[in-house]
Amino acid sequence: MNFFNNTYKLRFVPLGGVVGVTKNMYLYELYKGETLQDIVIVDCGMGFPDAKEFGIDLIIPDISYLADKTDKIRAILLTHGHEDHIGALPFHYQKLGSPPMYASKLTKMFVSNKFKEFGAKINLTEIEYRKWYAFGDIQARFIHLTHSIPDTTHILIKSPVGTLYHGSDFKFDLTPPYTTPPDFYEITRAGEEGIMCLLSDSLGCEREGLTLSESIVGQTFEDEMRKTRGKFFMTTFSSNISRIRQCVDAAIKFNRKVVFMGRSMRQNSEAAKNLQYLPIPRSLQAKEHDVAKLPPNKLCLIVAGSQGQFDSALSKIARKQNKYVKITAGDKVIFSSDPIPGNEQEVYALIENLSLQGADVVYSDIQEQLHASGHGNQEDMKFLARFTNPKYFIPIGGTIRHQRQYQRLMTDMGYKEQTILTLMEGDTVVFEKGTARRGGAVETKNVYVDAYGIGDIGNVVLRDRQTLSSDGMVVCVLVIDTYGQLTTTPRFFSRGFVFEKKEDQLFDEGARLIEKRLKGAQGRVTDVNGMKKSVGTDLEDFFYKQRGRKPLILVDIIEI
Amino acid sequence: MNFFNNTYKLRFVPLGGVVGVTKNMYLYELYKGETLQDIVIVDCGMGFPDAKEFGIDLIIPDISYLADKTDKIRAILLTHGHEDHIGALPFHYQKLGSPPMYASKLTKMFVSNKFKEFGAKINLTEIEYRKWYAFGDIQARFIHLTHSIPDTTHILIKSPVGTLYHGSDFKFDLTPPYTTPPDFYEITRAGEEGIMCLLSDSLGCEREGLTLSESIVGQTFEDEMRKTRGKFFMTTFSSNISRIRQCVDAAIKFNRKVVFMGRSMRQNSEAAKNLQYLPIPRSLQAKEHDVAKLPPNKLCLIVAGSQGQFDSALSKIARKQNKYVKITAGDKVIFSSDPIPGNEQEVYALIENLSLQGADVVYSDIQEQLHASGHGNQEDMKFLARFTNPKYFIPIGGTIRHQRQYQRLMTDMGYKEQTILTLMEGDTVVFEKGTARRGGAVETKNVYVDAYGIGDIGNVVLRDRQTLSSDGMVVCVLVIDTYGQLTTTPRFFSRGFVFEKKEDQLFDEGARLIEKRLKGAQGRVTDVNGMKKSVGTDLEDFFYKQRGRKPLILVDIIEI
Repeated sequence: MNFFNNTYKLRFVPLGGVVGVTKNMYLYELYKGETLQDIVIVDCGMGFPDAKEFGIDLIIPDISYLADKTDKIRAILLTHGHEDHIGALPFHYQKLGSPPMYASKLTKMFVSNKFKEFGAKINLTEIEYRKWYAFGDIQARFIHLTHSIPDTTHILIKSPVGTLYHGSDFKFDLTPPYTTPPDFYEITRAGEEGIMCLLSDSLGCEREGLTLSESIVGQTFEDEMRKTRGKFFMTTFSSNISRIRQCVDAAIKFNRKVVFMGRSMRQNSEAAKNLQYLPIPRSLQAKEHDVAKLPPNKLCLIVAGSQGQFDSALSKIARKQNKYVKITAGDKVIFSSDPIPGNEQEVYALIENLSLQGADVVYSDIQEQLHASGHGNQEDMKFLARFTNPKYFIPIGGTIRHQRQYQRLMTDMGYKEQTILTLMEGDTVVFEKGTARRGGAVETKNVYVDAYGIGDIGNVVLRDRQTLSSDGMVVCVLVIDTYGQLTTTPRFFSRGFVFEKKEDQLFDEGARLIEKRLKGAQGRVTDVNGMKKSVGTDLEDFFYKQRGRKPLILVDIIEI
Repeated sequence: MNFFNNTYKLRFVPLGGVVGVTKNMYLYELYKGETLQDIVIVDCGMGFPDAKEFGIDLIIPDISYLADKTDKIRAILLTHGHEDHIGALPFHYQKLGSPPMYASKLTKMFVSNKFKEFGAKINLTEIEYRKWYAFGDIQARFIHLTHSIPDTTHILIKSPVGTLYHGSDFKFDLTPPYTTPPDFYEITRAGEEGIMCLLSDSLGCEREGLTLSESIVGQTFEDEMRKTRGKFFMTTFSSNISRIRQCVDAAIKFNRKVVFMGRSMRQNSEAAKNLQYLPIPRSLQAKEHDVAKLPPNKLCLIVAGSQGQFDSALSKIARKQNKYVKITAGDKVIFSSDPIPGNEQEVYALIENLSLQGADVVYSDIQEQLHASGHGNQEDMKFLARFTNPKYFIPIGGTIRHQRQYQRLMTDMGYKEQTILTLMEGDTVVFEKGTARRGGAVETKNVYVDAYGIGDIGNVVLRDRQTLSSDGMVVCVLVIDTYGQLTTTPRFFSRGFVFEKKEDQLFDEGARLIEKRLKGAQGRVTDVNGMKKSVGTDLEDFFYKQRGRKPLILVDIIEI
C-alpha cells in the first residue's frame, strides 16, 4: 500500500462521542476518488440523557446517514464492554445490515448477552491481539489496554491514506489487577511506523499527574472490611468487573458470603463468572433472599445503584423497600465510584438516606482511595501522544470543555494548535495526501428511547415533559350537547399545579371565564378546535396572572 | 547467538555506584567456560567524599582488580556527561590500557575537555543511536533517554547469555527542553526481544508519582526575572546544561547580559556553546569584570556553588570576596537545585549570608518549581520496569536504602523479591543458562584523591584528619644535649585544642609531667623512640583527664 496514495481519501465521522462523553460511535470511510468504498464502524454505544431530557431512558446514535450505505459497512469493531460503547447495538445492528462484529473476550460476552435479551442473531468474532484484520482496503489491529473493565482495547485503523490510532477510553495502569499492563510495545511500534492521527480519550485531561492504578482500591476494601462488624455493602458501576472482583477477593479473605443485587449487577457478574473473570467459591455465593438468615458479619453485598438511581437496588434498600435486606447499625456502605456530573444530588440524597438507617457510609469525599478513575489523567494522555507521535490529534470521549483542555495540553507539549482538531457531533475530518482537513458535516440528531419505543419522541414531547416537571398540568373538559351547548359546568382536573385546597376557587373562576367566552359565541360551540384553542389561551393567561405558572393545559370538548 | 549458550557466562561487577550514589563504574565480563574473554566497562565516574572524609577532594573507583585483565577490556561505554559517570577517566584511562571509548555528542565533548586538561591522548567515538556495536562477543546499543543533562543514554548489553538493560540515571521527561523525548520505541522493543536483567537508576524511588519535566523550570525563571529589579543570579550544577539554557533564554527575553562565574560553570558553558547547545547572542555575553560597569537590571549571572562549597564563586560573593560582583538590595539569587544530603548546613549558611547582603534568595523550600530532579520518581521506575519486563532487577545509582525501597516498589508490582538483587560494591552477579546467581565478591576500596596526589592517603591519614578536626593537635618538643639531658623546659605548640589562655597552665603541668618521667630515667633520654612514646602516652592521659579530649599528640626530641 502506498502511504500517500492520491486516489484514496479517508473520512472520519463521529456519530457521537465527541460532544457528550457517551454514545460513542465513529465511522471510518474510505473513498477511492469520490466513490465510497469501505466503511468500518468503531463502537455503537448508548448515551445517557441529561436531567433536562425528561422521561428518556437512553439515547442512541442517529444512524440515518448510513441508511443508504449499509452495503459498504465491512465491520463493527468494539473497543470494550461499557454500555456507552456497545449499548446501542441491539437497536441498530439489523438496520446496519448485520455486519460482522469484532470484540475482545469479555466484550464479546457482554454483547452476546445483550442480544440474547433481544433474541437476535449476530456475527461476532473474538479478536486476537497483534493481528491485522482486513476489511476491504482498511486494516484494523487491536491493542491491549487498561481501563475500568477488563479486555479494553485500542484499535489501529490502517488505510492507503495512512494509519489512525483509535485511542478510546483508557488509562495506563501499570499494576492492573487480574490482567497484564498495556501492550506498550505495540503502542510505540505503531508510533514508530507512523501515525497520521491520534484519536484520544480526553475525559481526564483536567486532572494532573497519572491516574491511580485500579489495584489501590483492593487494599481499601480489605481495610474497610476488617473494620466492619455488620453487613458490608459495596456499590459501583456494574460493568467494573475488576473493581467487583477486588471486593469479592476481600470477601473471600474475610469469609463473607457474596450477594449480587440489582439486575445489571447480577447479569454482569454472571457473565464474568462464566469467563472465569470472577471466581467465587460456591460456599461463599448467596442470594438476596438468604440475607436475613445469615449473620451480618458474614455478608458482602455488591449492589447496583452507585449513581443514586431511583429504581436501583441500593435506593430501594435505603427506602426500606427491600423485604430481605435491611440496613442495621454496624453496616457499612462503600461507594466505590464518583457521582457522574449531574448526579450529585441523587447520590448525596442516597448517602443521607443510608446514613439515616444507621449505616456507616464511606464515599470518595471522605476516603480518597475508594475509586480510581478508568480514564487517564494528563500524564497518561501525554504518554500516549509521545508513544504514537501523530501528525494530527482528535480528542474524543469528552465534552467540548475537555476537547479544549486536551488541545491546550498538547500545545503545551509543543504540538501546533491547528493539528489538534476539535469536533462537534457529525463534523468530519478528511485525510488525504498526508494531510487532514475538515470535511462537510453529517446531519445527526439525538434518538431518544423510552419505555414505549425508539425514536418516536421529538422535541415537542421533551418540551412538554419539561413543562410538566416544573409547572404541572391542568385538564379542562367541556361536555356539550348536539346543539353545541354546555350540559354541565366545565370540569377541571390537575396534577402538580397548585395545592388542592386552593384549586376549587381557581377552577370556579376558570369555569366562569369559559362561560363568558361561550356567551360571546351565543352560548354555542360551533368550531370545536377553535374553541379548544381559545379556552386554552384564556386559561393559560388566567392561571399565569393568578399563579405565575404556565401549566400544560389540555382542553377537551366532548359532544354527547 | 544462542540465548541459553551453556558455554558462556556473563558476570556483572559494580566497582562503584551501588552503595553510594556516585563513583559509577560497572564491568560486564563475558566468560567462555571459565576463561574470561571480553570485558566491557560502563562509566568511570568520581565519587564525592563524605563529610567524614577530611581533606579529600574526590574519590575514584578502585581498578586494581582489572590490573591483570586490561588485555580483555574491549571498550568503555559512557552513559552521560556527569562527573560521577566520567570524572575518573583521566585518572584511570591509561591504566586500563587506553581502550576505545564510546559516548554521545555532549558527553564526548565533556570527556575531551577533561583529557585536554591532563594532556592525554584518547580514543573516543561519538555513538550513533539505534545501532549495535560489537565488542568481542558482547554487543552494545545506546538508547536516547532524558535526564538533567542532554545526550543521556541507556545501554543495552547483549551477550550470548542474554541481554541486560543498563538503565542508569534517567527520568521520563515528556517535554524535555531542547531535545526529543526518550526513545520509547527502542526501550519497549528491547523488552519485547527479552531482557534478562534491568539495571535501574533507583535514586528517586522514595518519591511518589512521576518526576516533573525539566521544562517547568523555564517558566519559573521567566516569572522570577520579570519581578527582579536588580541583578539576577542563578546557581545550579554546572553540568545541568538544559537548566542553564533555560535561564539564558529567559535572560535573552529580558535583554539581560549573561555572565558565567566559577571555573566549572565557565568550562561547561563553553563546551555547550561550541556544540550549539547554548546559543547566546554576542551582544548579551559579558564577563565578570564587566559586572560593576553594567546596570544591575541588565545582568544575569549564572554562578557555580549551588551546594554551598566554601571555595565556590557564589560563596565568595556572599563573603564579599569578589571585587567585581557585590550583592546589593534588589538583587535576586535563585537556587535551582536541592542540597545534596549532607550539604544542607553549607547551603543554608550560604542562603543566610546572601540574604544578609540584601539579596532576595529563592530556593526550593519556598518555591516548588525551581528545580526538577534529573532522576525518575516511583512511576518513572515502574514504567521502565513494564517497558523492559525483565527477569531480574539490579538497582543502581542509589544508597542501600534506595536499593531496599526499589525492591519494595518492584515487589508491590508483583515481581518476586528474589529476582531483585541488591548489591554491595564489588558484589557480583553471574548470568548463566537463563538464570542469575550471586558470584564471588571483588575486593575494592575507596581510592582518595586530594591536592597532593591519588591513592596515597590511607585510613590512618583519614583518622588523623578526623582527630584533628574534632580534638585538635598538640606538638611537644624536647631538646636534649649529647648526654641526653633536657636543655630547656619542654616546649608546647597547639592548634584547635583549648583556648590559648588556658593553655599555659595546662602545658606547664605537662612539662612537669615530662620532667617527672625523665627523673625516673635518671634525667636522661637514652631510648629516643621509647621516650617519645612514653611522653606521648603520658600527655594523652593527662590531657584527657584534664580536658576530656584526645588531641593528636606529636612528640619530637631534638638532639643538639
